[in-house]
Amino acid sequence: MADTAAREFFTTRTVAEALAAFRPGRRTRTESVPLHLALRRVPGEPVTAPHPLPGFPRSTVDGYAVRAADTYGVSEGLPGYLDVTGAVSMGAEPQTAVTPGRAIAMPTGGVIPPGADAVVMIEYTAEVMPGTIEVVRPVAPGEGIVRADEDAGAGDEIIGRGRPLRPQDLGMLAAAGVTSVTVHAKPVVTIFSTGDEVVPAGTPALKPGQVRDATAAALAALVADAGGEPVFGGIMPDDPGPLEKALRAALPASDVIVISAGSSVGTRDETANAVARLGEPGIWCHGLAIKPGKPTLLAECAGVPVIGLPGNPRSALVVFRMVGAPVVRLVGGCTVPPPEPSTRARLSRDLASATGRLDVVQVRVSDGVAVPVFGVSALLSVLTTADGYIVIPAEATGLDAGSEVNVVLYA
Amino acid sequence: MADTAAREFFTTRTVAEALAAFRPGRRTRTESVPLHLALRRVPGEPVTAPHPLPGFPRSTVDGYAVRAADTYGVSEGLPGYLDVTGAVSMGAEPQTAVTPGRAIAMPTGGVIPPGADAVVMIEYTAEVMPGTIEVVRPVAPGEGIVRADEDAGAGDEIIGRGRPLRPQDLGMLAAAGVTSVTVHAKPVVTIFSTGDEVVPAGTPALKPGQVRDATAAALAALVADAGGEPVFGGIMPDDPGPLEKALRAALPASDVIVISAGSSVGTRDETANAVARLGEPGIWCHGLAIKPGKPTLLAECAGVPVIGLPGNPRSALVVFRMVGAPVVRLVGGCTVPPPEPSTRARLSRDLASATGRLDVVQVRVSDGVAVPVFGVSALLSVLTTADGYIVIPAEATGLDAGSEVNVVLYA
Repeated sequence: MADTAAREFFTTRTVAEALAAFRPGRRTRTESVPLHLALRRVPGEPVTAPHPLPGFPRSTVDGYAVRAADTYGVSEGLPGYLDVTGAVSMGAEPQTAVTPGRAIAMPTGGVIPPGADAVVMIEYTAEVMPGTIEVVRPVAPGEGIVRADEDAGAGDEIIGRGRPLRPQDLGMLAAAGVTSVTVHAKPVVTIFSTGDEVVPAGTPALKPGQVRDATAAALAALVADAGGEPVFGGIMPDDPGPLEKALRAALPASDVIVISAGSSVGTRDETANAVARLGEPGIWCHGLAIKPGKPTLLAECAGVPVIGLPGNPRSALVVFRMVGAPVVRLVGGCTVPPPEPSTRARLSRDLASATGRLDVVQVRVSDGVAVPVFGVSALLSVLTTADGYIVIPAEATGLDAGSEVNVVLYA
Repeated sequence: MADTAAREFFTTRTVAEALAAFRPGRRTRTESVPLHLALRRVPGEPVTAPHPLPGFPRSTVDGYAVRAADTYGVSEGLPGYLDVTGAVSMGAEPQTAVTPGRAIAMPTGGVIPPGADAVVMIEYTAEVMPGTIEVVRPVAPGEGIVRADEDAGAGDEIIGRGRPLRPQDLGMLAAAGVTSVTVHAKPVVTIFSTGDEVVPAGTPALKPGQVRDATAAALAALVADAGGEPVFGGIMPDDPGPLEKALRAALPASDVIVISAGSSVGTRDETANAVARLGEPGIWCHGLAIKPGKPTLLAECAGVPVIGLPGNPRSALVVFRMVGAPVVRLVGGCTVPPPEPSTRARLSRDLASATGRLDVVQVRVSDGVAVPVFGVSALLSVLTTADGYIVIPAEATGLDAGSEVNVVLYA
């Protein structure tokens, strides 16, 4: 965390500052999960190979295990001849060794017999009489062979900590016989919605002025994408008393708290007041130099990061993606975030932007052209219509039509 | 499907042909799932808004609801004056209408009262005496207001079929009061491993020549990523009889069958023989112009796509990603696949490649440079070391050092 002296109540910060300095120290405990439930989970410690992999020298081709020296100088015009003294079966130990002038038939993946130091591909051999092959190409020692420790040596790190497990990582763990992994527990992210106008999504008929809670459903999905476990704290009225009480009750069981704050200035201030009373060190920033999303609050109370989002769904989702998801990942031990889908495109029109503020502009992309989707920040349809977004950096005054932009794509 | 006459036993196809023409018609049934379980699920039908959204005209700012005409011509130097006759509360119906010369205080998100056609931001007003404000900026009709149907009109399609649901889509559905969605059932993908040498990942101590089943664990993860439900069919010996029997038993309960075939030519042929006897129309290709991954088999038997993968884990995973995952997505109703993470990078060295064959090269990426990770195709560590892969197109003879390449990144 940055210097706590700077945690004034109405400090406005840039997104870059938030990403660099609002890095709560909280980490979830680790737990053991079976391999088939470990996809995208974050290893809490490195995993090492308990023994060499594959564990024995294997043939990489169908052919004959030989002593490489026996093939030196052979060619199509001047083949070498070897006696075939046996055949290796898959999954079985070779019964005989390869001695000078002799060869043993090998399936791909079979165990290299003692005495052999290369495998000649079957394509470069012919059985000229029963038990005898001719070889028309020489092989070098090691050719056609995977060494016993070529995939991993005993004790080699096969999985590092902090990077979510990918499909191939699970394969490597399975190969090593590691059937459970120590991973960080998913951070429990308690999501509160606030607002006298907000009613549950399941409300069939709305009274005038009521809106259903769209933000909680979308935030829960973004939390899951960031490796968290979303828990719904409830819809709170625009009243700091009950909110503070609910936040306080949620603290012990939460790794992160997210509040989609009321949308008017007054209720936002009430949210800030409630958060400020939760515990030390308290509010880190109240106001983020981003559009949409200025009324964002970042705090850490009694060891729990608290993220106060703007009241309208679209701004809330934009900000959570930018600064909330990284906090959830961090608390969950993820130090190597997975890459995001993106594409380069040409901007269809000029975009204005104020300096000192990061602008997030939703776009549709087709045929390499990014077309901004406009609409007031309250509109969710702007997000559902968009294929992704572009970021206009804080130092820019805008972007020209035709300029090449990086579009972060929604997956 | 392409012409079935072309389904010869050893037909080799290009990856482009496979993606364009191996498109089994099977689709999973649809089912209803609650919204909180619908992330990334594939809608089986479009969803329309049951009523306009937000459903009432809302203020987008804190300020005063006015008749726009009452503000025309006002300025800092010549403010207009309006009587404030009330205040709208969040989530409640306005108690009074706005009449000429009058204004009503509005919170962001509140219901626009009858008679008002704009909202003046509070920043451009001042309460000059109790009950009277001055207004220093004019507003146009519609300013500061979201129309009742601006996010969606009644009957508007808010979610299309075929695209996996994203976080913002769940938000939009919640806003519309749609708490369950009709989605395609996850395709059941039965995964078979074959090979006399293959033993379960949980085998603590290996006998000489044995390897643990790495492919099944990784394939299950790739299937899940493609929206499928992996089911493990078991490890089959290199014997076509039991394999055919097991495949036949799995057919009725499978939407897709994936076999990581034996690695030697003989056992691959046995797999093909077993698949060929499963049902019509049968094998579509046996051999794919891709490296690694040539010995790939694509078939459709009794309505079930069957994908035979090369025996070594790395080739199997590369091929499944390229041609298997698209089939799983398709069967699961996904017609708009989510974007993949990728990045542009410069190649660190020359790469040779044979024409007529697509080459998949694993790379590490740092500082914009893609460095190929080499190793025989049996090595899983090549995949776990890599950050992603580049594809050398079939028509290329290679890539020069320094050329710009598109790296598909592993997430």
